Amino acid sequence: MVPRHTSKSSAVSGAHATGAALQPEASVYRVALLGFGTVGRSVAKILCERALPSLRLTHIYNRNIERKKIAGLPADICWTENFDEVLGAGVDLVVEVVGGLEPAGQWVRRALEHGKSVVTANKQLIAHRGVELLEVARACGQQLYFGASVAGGIPVLSGLQEGLAGDQLYKVCGILNGTCNYILSQVENAGIPFAVALREAQQAGFAEADPTDDVDGYDARAKLAILAYAGLNTQVQLDQILCRSIREVDAVDFTYAHQVNCTIRQISRAEVHGNQLLAAVQPALVPFESPLARVLGSQNLVVATGQYGAETVFSGYGAGGNPTAVAIVSDLLAIAQRSPARHAGAPTPITARKVSADFTTPHYVRFTVSDRPGIIAALATIFAKHGINIDAIFQKTGFPKDQLAFVITLESCPAAVMNQALAEIEALDFHVRQPLHLPVLR
Amino acid sequence: MVPRHTSKSSAVSGAHATGAALQPEASVYRVALLGFGTVGRSVAKILCERALPSLRLTHIYNRNIERKKIAGLPADICWTENFDEVLGAGVDLVVEVVGGLEPAGQWVRRALEHGKSVVTANKQLIAHRGVELLEVARACGQQLYFGASVAGGIPVLSGLQEGLAGDQLYKVCGILNGTCNYILSQVENAGIPFAVALREAQQAGFAEADPTDDVDGYDARAKLAILAYAGLNTQVQLDQILCRSIREVDAVDFTYAHQVNCTIRQISRAEVHGNQLLAAVQPALVPFESPLARVLGSQNLVVATGQYGAETVFSGYGAGGNPTAVAIVSDLLAIAQRSPARHAGAPTPITARKVSADFTTPHYVRFTVSDRPGIIAALATIFAKHGINIDAIFQKTGFPKDQLAFVITLESCPAAVMNQALAEIEALDFHVRQPLHLPVLR
Repeated sequence: MVPRHTSKSSAVSGAHATGAALQPEASVYRVALLGFGTVGRSVAKILCERALPSLRLTHIYNRNIERKKIAGLPADICWTENFDEVLGAGVDLVVEVVGGLEPAGQWVRRALEHGKSVVTANKQLIAHRGVELLEVARACGQQLYFGASVAGGIPVLSGLQEGLAGDQLYKVCGILNGTCNYILSQVENAGIPFAVALREAQQAGFAEADPTDDVDGYDARAKLAILAYAGLNTQVQLDQILCRSIREVDAVDFTYAHQVNCTIRQISRAEVHGNQLLAAVQPALVPFESPLARVLGSQNLVVATGQYGAETVFSGYGAGGNPTAVAIVSDLLAIAQRSPARHAGAPTPITARKVSADFTTPHYVRFTVSDRPGIIAALATIFAKHGINIDAIFQKTGFPKDQLAFVITLESCPAAVMNQALAEIEALDFHVRQPLHLPVLR
Repeated sequence: MVPRHTSKSSAVSGAHATGAALQPEASVYRVALLGFGTVGRSVAKILCERALPSLRLTHIYNRNIERKKIAGLPADICWTENFDEVLGAGVDLVVEVVGGLEPAGQWVRRALEHGKSVVTANKQLIAHRGVELLEVARACGQQLYFGASVAGGIPVLSGLQEGLAGDQLYKVCGILNGTCNYILSQVENAGIPFAVALREAQQAGFAEADPTDDVDGYDARAKLAILAYAGLNTQVQLDQILCRSIREVDAVDFTYAHQVNCTIRQISRAEVHGNQLLAAVQPALVPFESPLARVLGSQNLVVATGQYGAETVFSGYGAGGNPTAVAIVSDLLAIAQRSPARHAGAPTPITARKVSADFTTPHYVRFTVSDRPGIIAALATIFAKHGINIDAIFQKTGFPKDQLAFVITLESCPAAVMNQALAEIEALDFHVRQPLHLPVLR
């Protein structure tokens, strides 16, 4: 499809009059907002409050738009519940904050095909169909930006793709889900069971009624896939990335983790090893001295590691209306400033790599057993058979004999080897609760 | 002067052949390196190892170039000690890593006037003459990028100017000098006097033979001025920014700071208050829970605060050949990708603000006195007269009576008020060492 070129309306620039002859005329980009929930309202607020000379909010789309109208926005904004009206109007940039795969995906595609660049905060859409939609954008000579889809207001995508473009990044590791970080912090600080912390987070509005996406890792997985694409130039299918829930992590695990100077966090990481991409979202032990251990409440943090510049850390507020809207408006400004689309030759080559979660790390395994002689001997025998060295055994006093929780830490070995050993161990008959194994970050 | 347009050589792009008709031809930008010290060699290494399709290193300039030649670079690189040869050649991008104000400043200007975009790591040049040189670049239709001039490999300038462009930033605060951070960490961890830590840092190559630029704050001040320009759109004269040395901070200050759960760091901060810019580089007490307190060794960290996105943190390696070179190559790639120059209308308006260091904070004052009755009464009387509330008094045991070091912490008050009180206090006759006053960050 041949893109329809949308002419930008001209504005007179008063500044730097002497150099004006050498500068292209200033343009005002007309912006349509698809979706007027928390993030959409924040975007509208920033665009109207800041009165940025290159961006003008002209259209707001939502279902049942009459109920969404708010006061305080310019009177000439067109409120509509008809997407085609947005496509037909002289809109230059479309902001998609509807969420979900459809109809958002169709709308993004149609907007691009109608010659509009698109900014989206939709992590699921980009993680599932980003490569295809970027190809549509390229073919239509338009831009598709998605800086808000990972880590909200923290400019990590632009940091990886532009600020660190000179480096050869091979690893990204981060805390990408604020809800998990909040819940685990509560379990840690208040010493309460996971289920109680989850319920409290739901009551406080920090977790959804159905918390699956967050606590079982699917939200973070989508973000990790986008980071792997943007930072490691690797395309990953979402279901290739291991996702382990944080639901089994309990107060006792923090007690034991503290004994080895660690906390426990939901960690998303991806690492290039030749033709392979190691990638997983799972709870892990994190040493206190790591910046990952110090992420407060619902904040996010990403560590990017490169061949030349070593580690660079980005952190801040990963969610919420205003931080997400900052990322969206920054993307709008980037498109407005860089127009026409930048295509300095070929796009960055994207590699398809074999994906695995077989990280080599030390491990932490917490057993809950009905105590009797011979348990340690049985475990030690199986670990030895698989060539896994025991590092230490920790056992707090005060547990009932039929609910004894103790921990074995193990020296570094591949996750696959650990999983084999654990499969044998789980078949033993003294468990009263499934063992919980966690990798230890180093 | 009318810029001479340099045509970029064409290269065939093999990728995405189906979309090729819609894309401009790929260009190779010819890069000249001015200066072949540590950073220059790292830039050359990255450009040659990564073989980026859009960048080709063609010229290396240095004085006494014969002594600088190294093996391993492509044979067709032109090594020269004649700057005019670089100007005359078909070079598109010039990297300036010579340092100092002149001849670097002249060379940057002449390169721009000859139609070459410039990437520089030269913080003094940008801090002193950045606005003027950016105007030259604009008039010549060229780009001047300086991402490497602040915080080395950490993409903080692009983060502020682009990643957070959607926000209205009003505050930047950071640790911008790795040498100071290293020395203060050593004083803290080893409990050694400042002079010993400085000497050790010099012997280890972490501090210059003349450490003035680092320990007295001039290096950080130049970086703070650039951050104020890039992040707060404020132009500052360097000598308007208060600079206080870290030389007076000693092991005893860490002992007292720890009692109020703080460490001491060289802090650079700038904050917009209406028409005023508060700005200073000085040692300050930093609460342990602040990310600023956890910057290790020679690392750097910047916290940017905006009206919408709240705090965003950038950290990593702020100096060294490779990290600085990453920032330079990232800038080269940005120019190559965004060419022709992006000028979406008027440049961001830069505001001239009244500059002051009159931050309102709690204060820490360490006195070293020859003890006698009435000292606390005298101090308390003066503080009370200026309306300053005493928060607490700390006095460790074990000091000789004629060299007694004790600390008074004071509730929040403007620095100007504190300075008036201290001027009166310094005139009292019991001091055996000048009192040391430090603001306390909150």
